[in-house]
This record gives sequence, structure tokens and C-alpha cells, in this order.
Amino acid sequence: MRLSINSLREQVTKILEKNLSHEQAEIVAKYFVWAEMSGNKTQGIVKLMGASSIQNIRPQGEIEIVKDTKLSRIIDAKDNPAPLNAQIATDLAIQKASEHGFAIVGVKNTFSSNGAQAYYVEQIAKHDLIGIMCSRSPASQAAFGGIDPVFGTDPIGFGFPSLGEPLVFDAATSTMTYYGLVLAKARGETIPEHMAIDKDGKSTTDPAAAMDGALLSFDRSYKGSGFAMVVEALAGPLLGGAWVDNMTFKEEWGTIVMAIDPDLMVGREQFKENTSDMIAKIKSSRTIGDSSIRLPGESAQQQYEAAKNSGEVEIDDAVANEIGIFGDKS
Amino acid sequence: MRLSINSLREQVTKILEKNLSHEQAEIVAKYFVWAEMSGNKTQGIVKLMGASSIQNIRPQGEIEIVKDTKLSRIIDAKDNPAPLNAQIATDLAIQKASEHGFAIVGVKNTFSSNGAQAYYVEQIAKHDLIGIMCSRSPASQAAFGGIDPVFGTDPIGFGFPSLGEPLVFDAATSTMTYYGLVLAKARGETIPEHMAIDKDGKSTTDPAAAMDGALLSFDRSYKGSGFAMVVEALAGPLLGGAWVDNMTFKEEWGTIVMAIDPDLMVGREQFKENTSDMIAKIKSSRTIGDSSIRLPGESAQQQYEAAKNSGEVEIDDAVANEIGIFGDKS
Repeated sequence: MRLSINSLREQVTKILEKNLSHEQAEIVAKYFVWAEMSGNKTQGIVKLMGASSIQNIRPQGEIEIVKDTKLSRIIDAKDNPAPLNAQIATDLAIQKASEHGFAIVGVKNTFSSNGAQAYYVEQIAKHDLIGIMCSRSPASQAAFGGIDPVFGTDPIGFGFPSLGEPLVFDAATSTMTYYGLVLAKARGETIPEHMAIDKDGKSTTDPAAAMDGALLSFDRSYKGSGFAMVVEALAGPLLGGAWVDNMTFKEEWGTIVMAIDPDLMVGREQFKENTSDMIAKIKSSRTIGDSSIRLPGESAQQQYEAAKNSGEVEIDDAVANEIGIFGDKS
Repeated sequence: MRLSINSLREQVTKILEKNLSHEQAEIVAKYFVWAEMSGNKTQGIVKLMGASSIQNIRPQGEIEIVKDTKLSRIIDAKDNPAPLNAQIATDLAIQKASEHGFAIVGVKNTFSSNGAQAYYVEQIAKHDLIGIMCSRSPASQAAFGGIDPVFGTDPIGFGFPSLGEPLVFDAATSTMTYYGLVLAKARGETIPEHMAIDKDGKSTTDPAAAMDGALLSFDRSYKGSGFAMVVEALAGPLLGGAWVDNMTFKEEWGTIVMAIDPDLMVGREQFKENTSDMIAKIKSSRTIGDSSIRLPGESAQQQYEAAKNSGEVEIDDAVANEIGIFGDKS
């Protein structure tokens, strides 16, 4: 269905108020509306489906600051929603890095994933800083050469300021998201080949067998597995959260947000100029077809702008029906 | 041939003294000896072959500090050798991060590549800090969807302290090194399939056609290309060096070295404990065969230790002959 952005925001906020304050629910809703506007459907309101989705989890208590320094903070989220905590971490990283040149903020024990890294690192880049974000999740990805799930889908994201829109890149280090498996299983569909292995290490297209087994790394090789290990080390051991071989799907999500001020190097304005020049030069490369090279994040930014200009967004009817979102009165 | 490590070090130092001081030559030689001891032959003394190798380039002048802050420095290398400057940057990053929690040091206008990132990030990790390193090189890698070379082979490296040896991961973001092309061409060999494209964007196994065309990203997809773009942005635009579409092979190498003190997060000792626990858990995963999972860097560390214990190292006869390295007197 197609409905106004304002209506979607209000309805999602209302759903999230079940266990959150109005203010907290608004912060989380803002993320989901962004994901829908950006066309990032697998990281959008589909995540509000099911009994153990964000709005149905009661936080254990108030978010707690475990450690704080000039350049850093560790937060214990106490099962508060990941998008809420990722936003808190992002705001704080922007504030500390703007003041001191660098910041690293870690959040452990969030409930579930914070969604697309692009949302957060783009905000950092819009403050003229470089954003880097790593998140771990319950084990679902095998290390290269292994059978058992040891890493999460473990995404990493980067945001760079430019004269125009920020340059944004984010990627799961696994072949696909865990939610993709859940969805395929629920729909009785298979997954593509070479995405996952079963519990004996054999390649499988059955999402249920993959959930008992493991996803592969995005390049099916040691480099992708290496990147997954890096994300795991930064978003687990470094902040004292969870890491590897935990599959209770409880208190296992962890995120690290870093911000670097380009004033430490060439300076903010010069870096934006240089980045824009780099973008222009990449895009001037010849391609096989007629179209020019599409940079990471570009399509999402265009869809977001189109939705913003129209004031409306298209959402999936089945998802809307299940979580209880209604169309605009006509 | 097999020769003593001391003899290799002395002979390489002597070769490098052609255009460097004894002290500078010793620093660069130390890198090459490490690469040979670690079994990293493509990043070793093979790089001293040819008319335009490191020892044959006369630096334009003294290394110059372009910018310096508490947390950062930009260095103009004036065509001084990359391994020399990467070492200077590494030492400085360790010093600044040990004192202030974080450091970012950039070097532009080095001559040629600094070799394996593992060498530098491992040193950072041995100082109980997290090391991150990104380097750009003359354009040889196409962006995803493009034909023209826009990125270099653009490697990225990470080093994490643990209770044992540091956990080290480094990877070129291209399918193979540019030097691999040069070597295959010189030997009249083909390269494997799906590594490179010719100047019209067609897949090729001819190294000469690939040098006129471009290497692909390591996963042949948008994620690998995205990682290449991230490395390019950090090692080019951020330090005001070169980026994209330059193929003069002059003043185009750039490197950024970052160090993060785990004391900003869980603390140094706790991080080392956590990392070691993570390593043990990854390695306890079942595998298809009998062997356990091999972590990135593990094989190189074992070869280095074996060479160190024996006091000797095996080097390629053809390479030794061409650059003028002689075996031990017997």
C-alpha cells in the first residue's frame, strides 16, 4: 500500500510505544521510516513482524554507561532496542569527534539488530566526519574452512562527507541476512545456491537446513571471512559484549560506532572536495552498457529523495496487515 | 637458495644503500627479510627486481611533515621508499595512540608499495593497540560495473593484540596483485580466469591484456568494489595524495595508519583475553577435513618462527641472482 510518510511514522511510533517511551519510540520509528523510504525493505518494518520483534521485548531496565572517556563510551543497552542505542551511540560519536577529533562508542546487550549501517554512518558524514560502524549478531556465519556458525552476519559500514550527498557503503560480511533465511522458511521458498551450508557442512538451498547450519562469507572465501572476524573483534571483544558460538539470541548484539574528523588530516572542506572529485572520476569510468557506474548507497539515496518529494511511501501489504499499519483515509 | 638471516639482511641493506643512508636502508631491509621469513614471497625481495625498483629510485629530497596534530600527522615522502615511510608512520601511530588513545598518520608520495600490511599492523598490535592500515596504488582495479581501472590493488590490514601472537588480517581488495601481472607477463604465463578484464571489458587470462585493462575486485562484485572505494577514500582524498585514474606510477602511492588504544573500551588486558578467547572459539569449529581452521596470518607467523629458530631462510635462486644476493660461504 501507499501511504503518507507522516502516517507511517505515527503508526510505527504507536506500535513501538508498547514497551518504550514516546520519545524513544519516535527515535526507533525514524529509522524504520528511513529504511522504507530508502527502499531497504529487508531492513525495514518487516522486522516488526513476529512475536519476538523489537516492540514485544520489554527492556531489562535503563540504559547504563559502563565506561566513559573523552574519546569513548561503552553503553550497556539492557535489551533496549538496537536502533535506539545505535542512534544514541551515533549522536555521541558525532559530539565527541567534533570536539576531540576522534570517537569510538560501543553498545552491548541491545535487542536485535540496528538495521542498515548506512542510516547511522550517513548521519556522521552529514556532520562532516568520517563514520565507521561494525555490528555483531548471534552466530550464523561459518569461518572459512569451518562448518559451525561462529560469526554473525556482521555488517560493516562507512560514510564519507562530500560536497553533495555523503558517500556511503555498508555490507553484511555474510552472503545474505539471517532474516532472509527466516523469511524464506516462512514462505516455503528455497534460497539461492552457494549461500549456506547445512549442519554437516554440505551446500544447501533449504533455509531451515541453513538455519541449523551456517551462512557462508560474502565471497565464499578467506577474505570475506577475515572481514567478518574483524567486525566480530571490534563489536564483541573490544566492548566486552558477546562473541562467537552463542546462539541464544539474547544479549548478543553489539555495535561499535567510530567517527574521525578530517581536520586531523587534510581538513573538512578539502576532504569534501577531494571525495567529490573521487566520486566524479569513478563515475566517469566506461561501462559495458549505457548506464554509468552506480556507487554504493546511490540508489537508496535516490529512492529516499523521491519518497521525500512525494511525501508518500510504498509499503508491503502483507507486512502492513500483520503488524497493524493502515492506509491513509481516502 | 638457503642462507642465514643475518647475511640476507646485510646484503639487502647494502643493495638499498645505493640511494639511502645506512640507517634508512636497514629499516627497509628489515621489512624485506620479514617478508621472506614469513613466506610472503610476492611481497618480498622479488620487489627489488627491475630497473624501477626501490633501490634504483633517488628520492626527491627529505621527508616533509605537512601537518601535525596531537592525534595525527601527514607526511610527504618525496619519493622516499614506501616501506621506510610506512615504518615511520607506524612508529608514530604507536607513539601518539599510546599517549592519546588514537592516532591517524598518512603518508603520500611514497615510492612504490609498502608491502604486506601485516608487517605494520602486527607491530601496532604488539604494542597492545589495534592497528588499521589502508594503502592506495596506481589505478589497476575496475569499480563494479566499470571497465576502466579506477582503484589500485588497495589493500587493507588489521592487527589485534591477544595473549599470544597478534591476530592479523590483511587483504588486497583486487583479485590479485599488480606485481602478479608483471611476473606472469615476464614469464610468458597466463593468469587464472575471472581475475581481470581487457581494455574492452572482456574477461582475459593474458597478463598483458589485463595490464591494459583492469583487475577485478576480490569478490567480483559490488562489496569488494565498495571495500576498494573505502581504502581509496582513506588513503587518497583524506591525506591529499592521489586518487583514481592516474597511471603514471609516480607519486601515487598513499598510506594511512591508524592505531586505537583498547583502554578507550574494555581495557588492554581484558581485550587481549577476549581476543584470545574469540580465537580459541573460532578454532574449535568443526571442519570438513581433519585440520582445524587456519586463521588469517597464522601460516605466515608459523613460517616466520620456523625461520627465526633455524636462523636461515630459503629464497628464490632466480631472484637472488638478478638482484645480486649470494649464498653463505660454505
